[in-house]
Amino acid sequence: MGERRAGRTLADLVAAVERAAAGQLSATVVGDGGCLIEAVAPLESAGPTDLSFLANLRYRRTAASTRAGAVVLSAADYETVKPAANAVLCAQPYAWFALAAQILNPASPLEPQVADGAWIDPGARLGHNCRVDAGAVIEADAQVGAGCWIGAGCYVGRGARVGDGSRLHPGARVLADCVLGARAIVHGGAVIGADGFGFAPLAGRWVKIPQLGRVIVGDDVEIGANTTIDRGTMGDTVIEDGVKIDNQVQIAHNCRIGAHTVIAGCVGIAGSAVIGRRCQLGGAAMIHGHITICDDVIVSGGTLISRSINEPGFYSGVFPFMPNREWERNAALVRHLRELRERLRRLEARHARDEEKP
Amino acid sequence: MGERRAGRTLADLVAAVERAAAGQLSATVVGDGGCLIEAVAPLESAGPTDLSFLANLRYRRTAASTRAGAVVLSAADYETVKPAANAVLCAQPYAWFALAAQILNPASPLEPQVADGAWIDPGARLGHNCRVDAGAVIEADAQVGAGCWIGAGCYVGRGARVGDGSRLHPGARVLADCVLGARAIVHGGAVIGADGFGFAPLAGRWVKIPQLGRVIVGDDVEIGANTTIDRGTMGDTVIEDGVKIDNQVQIAHNCRIGAHTVIAGCVGIAGSAVIGRRCQLGGAAMIHGHITICDDVIVSGGTLISRSINEPGFYSGVFPFMPNREWERNAALVRHLRELRERLRRLEARHARDEEKP
Amino acid sequence: MGERRAGRTLADLVAAVERAAAGQLSATVVGDGGCLIEAVAPLESAGPTDLSFLANLRYRRTAASTRAGAVVLSAADYETVKPAANAVLCAQPYAWFALAAQILNPASPLEPQVADGAWIDPGARLGHNCRVDAGAVIEADAQVGAGCWIGAGCYVGRGARVGDGSRLHPGARVLADCVLGARAIVHGGAVIGADGFGFAPLAGRWVKIPQLGRVIVGDDVEIGANTTIDRGTMGDTVIEDGVKIDNQVQIAHNCRIGAHTVIAGCVGIAGSAVIGRRCQLGGAAMIHGHITICDDVIVSGGTLISRSINEPGFYSGVFPFMPNREWERNAALVRHLRELRERLRRLEARHARDEEKP
Repeated sequence: MGERRAGRTLADLVAAVERAAAGQLSATVVGDGGCLIEAVAPLESAGPTDLSFLANLRYRRTAASTRAGAVVLSAADYETVKPAANAVLCAQPYAWFALAAQILNPASPLEPQVADGAWIDPGARLGHNCRVDAGAVIEADAQVGAGCWIGAGCYVGRGARVGDGSRLHPGARVLADCVLGARAIVHGGAVIGADGFGFAPLAGRWVKIPQLGRVIVGDDVEIGANTTIDRGTMGDTVIEDGVKIDNQVQIAHNCRIGAHTVIAGCVGIAGSAVIGRRCQLGGAAMIHGHITICDDVIVSGGTLISRSINEPGFYSGVFPFMPNREWERNAALVRHLRELRERLRRLEARHARDEEKP
Repeated sequence: MGERRAGRTLADLVAAVERAAAGQLSATVVGDGGCLIEAVAPLESAGPTDLSFLANLRYRRTAASTRAGAVVLSAADYETVKPAANAVLCAQPYAWFALAAQILNPASPLEPQVADGAWIDPGARLGHNCRVDAGAVIEADAQVGAGCWIGAGCYVGRGARVGDGSRLHPGARVLADCVLGARAIVHGGAVIGADGFGFAPLAGRWVKIPQLGRVIVGDDVEIGANTTIDRGTMGDTVIEDGVKIDNQVQIAHNCRIGAHTVIAGCVGIAGSAVIGRRCQLGGAAMIHGHITICDDVIVSGGTLISRSINEPGFYSGVFPFMPNREWERNAALVRHLRELRERLRRLEARHARDEEKP
Repeated sequence: MGERRAGRTLADLVAAVERAAAGQLSATVVGDGGCLIEAVAPLESAGPTDLSFLANLRYRRTAASTRAGAVVLSAADYETVKPAANAVLCAQPYAWFALAAQILNPASPLEPQVADGAWIDPGARLGHNCRVDAGAVIEADAQVGAGCWIGAGCYVGRGARVGDGSRLHPGARVLADCVLGARAIVHGGAVIGADGFGFAPLAGRWVKIPQLGRVIVGDDVEIGANTTIDRGTMGDTVIEDGVKIDNQVQIAHNCRIGAHTVIAGCVGIAGSAVIGRRCQLGGAAMIHGHITICDDVIVSGGTLISRSINEPGFYSGVFPFMPNREWERNAALVRHLRELRERLRRLEARHARDEEKP
């Protein structure tokens, strides 16, 4: 999106990554630190001014022969691969590469301006250096922090707050009274703060329970395209700091998502579920309502979690796929597992009886 | 969304709920009917002007010690819990609470106006007392009933109809010729009336089948954020009265959803499926196309319904989750169930043969 | 959407379909070729100027007694059904019907115009005969081909390209630098080109990996409402010619979808997956990242594909649904399959031992 490239020498880049990581990512250059690096590229297509990285020894051959200007990898992998290219040795090559890619591709600076076609209520407050594009609507009493981008067609509701340095991509919506922390990234079509799904049965009909809470989002949260996070019924739905949420995710009312948890695409989380910190929910995983998942739980894609998890670990529950004919035969037997066990028990009992015979 | 609070005494509230429920929800106050109630709140955080409720005896301790001004609960639970707070005894406390919450938090009255940045075709017809916000577009021949709210960035297509008292939240879209009944609530990002997914194969390509029908939605229907309901191919997709649909639901062309059915988030319903009345589809349930589900069916979250259901009841079909290592071992055996049964049969046969021996 | 009906005789229609199919769909009229056909309709509701079709002999009775002006069906089915109506005999009745429906319901011609409320950057280029509706935003350096419709509230980002004859329905978004081929149809709420979901762990936090690639979409692609297709990290996400994608589908960064593949609603495809040509992914199927699926693979709805598929064929993996009580009993046993097999083995071993006895 109009990113500017900022070439620099490999040695400069190593220093810049170390600064960006606050000293946590020191690295050593093997080869020519004066090599000019302008961009990042995959091993197989990288050229002499590109930086690439090796995450997995499966790709060792490609790494050995890459035409990249430099390759980031671990010292151990370096010994195995011995790439012809310059190398950056680092204990965490993926994180190093991520920061280097950020440095080489800085987000384009916002040109602060409010477009002609943006509709901002006079009672809204906008920080300095914001950019608001055409078709965006900001309602009364909304507060948008400094240095924010409110893209085309975005919506910031009455009384909502958007933290400093946040970026709402075209078509993102933050509804009334919801709160986004600093440096939020919200992608297009996301809806933050729609009504939770709450109805009480009465004489064959459903009575709507007013959804009176908010969505409160911490700092450094990213929310994917067309993801929905509902406001709380009473009390709030809470997304803690550093949570990363992919596209098409549904988070229901009164959930709490712990800090630095990542949620892949198409996940659904039902009402009042509490997810711990540093969890990883695989794509299309489903979480029942009113359960608690402790910190450091990993859930496989497509798995339905139907009760609380109190032990950190890796959980799965997916029917294995197979050729359809084979599936038809095996799936039919899933309906008869109890009967199979019963037959097995009877055989075991006969055996036991037989062995008692003289 | 700018809700006004409307405090009243507990006795007044009891009378107001009974009126709202047309006499179906009579209740008795134990304690001080003159107690002022201003808001609803959960048992644990409620204060002296808050109304709370007890739905489940799991929370009996919290209910016993709540600082709420009043608690709604059943007479039986009252005898068990004996809360210190004032109590409202009622046979259906959840429904009573829902109506009380509505009365205490009335939707803010619309200020009828058409925003400067709204684009309404001169050939569209708008009822009285409507509010149309900036960025909304209403096309020619569309009819919007009285007292409707068409939020920012909404779209009402050519020839579409929106019933009296409906609320389209920011970014909801009702496409050409589709019909919403009275008091519809459509949340942001919902798309009512996109083309159904219909293609015929021809020589290795797909020929589009024009999608000529409409979506017809009854009265008192709520449709969640980013939900999609496709128009019929020939004939219409029909959502009957009182249906409640959560976020991220997909309803394909030519489906019919029976009155007062509720559909939780992330459900997918394939083309021409017919769902009965008063059904409940759990989150991420999937319904095959061209099947029929009778009235009063409950489907567990995550369950795929692959053929018609003719008996009311509760249906499930989800692989149980477990620690990943355990899952890997068990899931591998699912592929061999037929073989297991075969081995069991052979053992049984040997047994039978052995027992025939003299 | 304001489609015009274009009545013609049955004989004319047969000729027009043959032309449209470039000679691939010849058909024979049995009965009155002069019969006027104005519309398509289902067998059961069709009237004397309607064309209907028989796809499945299940509906033979309806076909026999239909009041349609003409019925399309295969010669073999004609012999079985002997409908009273005029008949069009054709080897591929479904494709024939699809083209006939297109001819009878041509998309309304665009009235080329740029609405007052559309915001087009002076640096964008628009082909001739385009229609841009209110609330649409087209950014600098975007190129929109000839004869395109950019609906209300659509967004075409900086440097994006939209091919000739494409139709972006209200609220569709094509982000910066992405490319749509000719005759694309993109439905409302679709987001083409949001950031892929890429983060590297560093000291308990997640570092964003800049998403620098694009989405490249071939010709004749249809993309459903609220579907999301993410841009590549490095390199592009590619959707080849003729792919048809339903609503609420999520396609992650760096995927490649082969030509003429169809993807039903709610499917999720994780990063860097490569799907072959002419595949069919059923609704809510899930595809793991970094795997390859060869050409001509069909995946059942709801199936999770967790590793590469190298053989064309039909694959499934769904837990069968059953009454909840029955499911609870059987699902519990799924957790003990290994134990069941172990018990079976022990029995088999005893048997073998017993038989060795004299």
